Amino acid sequence: MPNTQKMRKVQIKLMRGLLDLVILQFLKVNPMHGYQVITRIRKNFGVYFGPSTVYPLLGELEEKGYIKSQWDLNNERPRKVYSLTHDGQSLLNGTEESLNHICRRLANIGLNRLSFSSKNNGIPKNPQRLY
Amino acid sequence: MPNTQKMRKVQIKLMRGLLDLVILQFLKVNPMHGYQVITRIRKNFGVYFGPSTVYPLLGELEEKGYIKSQWDLNNERPRKVYSLTHDGQSLLNGTEESLNHICRRLANIGLNRLSFSSKNNGIPKNPQRLY
Repeated sequence: MPNTQKMRKVQIKLMRGLLDLVILQFLKVNPMHGYQVITRIRKNFGVYFGPSTVYPLLGELEEKGYIKSQWDLNNERPRKVYSLTHDGQSLLNGTEESLNHICRRLANIGLNRLSFSSKNNGIPKNPQRLY
Repeated sequence: MPNTQKMRKVQIKLMRGLLDLVILQFLKVNPMHGYQVITRIRKNFGVYFGPSTVYPLLGELEEKGYIKSQWDLNNERPRKVYSLTHDGQSLLNGTEESLNHICRRLANIGLNRLSFSSKNNGIPKNPQRLY
C-alpha cells in the first residue's frame, strides 16, 4: 500500500475514535442537521465520514440523551436539527478532560510533540514521568 | 449508569483508538513481551486492556511488518519479545503527526483545552480558524 494511502487510513482510524467528541462540540456551538455535520467534519478535519457512519452515530447519541432533535419545516424537505442536551454537555466536558489526560500521558511516554496546552501554554503543571 | 462508570467507558473508547500508537511507542523505547505491554498500558494510562485485546493487536502489527518478535529463552517459559521495525518507526512518526494535526483541528473547533504543544510551548505557529 502506498505511504499516503496508509497514512490516510491511520488518520481515519484516529478520527473515528474522536467522532463523538467532534459531533458534540459542533452541536454545542450550533444546532445542525445531519448533512451539515458530515460536511463540517470534512471541512474541518479533511476526512470524509458518510451518512452510513454519521447518521447512526447521531441516532445513538440521541437515544442516550446526549443530543436532541427537532424538525425544521422551513425547507422544501423537512430536516431533523440536532442540538446538545445538558447530559451531552456533561459528556463533552468529561470526554475533553479524558482526552487531555490521555494526551498528557502520551507526552509522558515520550510522544513529546503531543501534549495538553492552552491555559498554561502547554507546560504541564506537574509533569510526571511514569516510566 | 453512574457518571464515573460512564466516563470510564469514554476513556476506554478513546484509548482503544490510540492503542497502536501507544504500543509502537513502548516498543520504540524498549523491546518487550506481550504481558509487559499490558502492564505498561495499565500503569501509564490507568486503563486495563487484557490479552484478548493486546495479543491480537501485536499479531496484527507483526503481520504488517511494523514490529518483529524474537523468542527469549532465558526464562522458565520462553517468551516472544517484540521490537519496532523500520516500517514501524515510519508508522509511528506518521501517526504522531496525524494526531498532532487532529489535535490542532480540535482546538480550532473550540476544544481549547486541547492543542498541540511542546517545541513551541503549545502556541500554534499558524492558528487557523476554519469555521
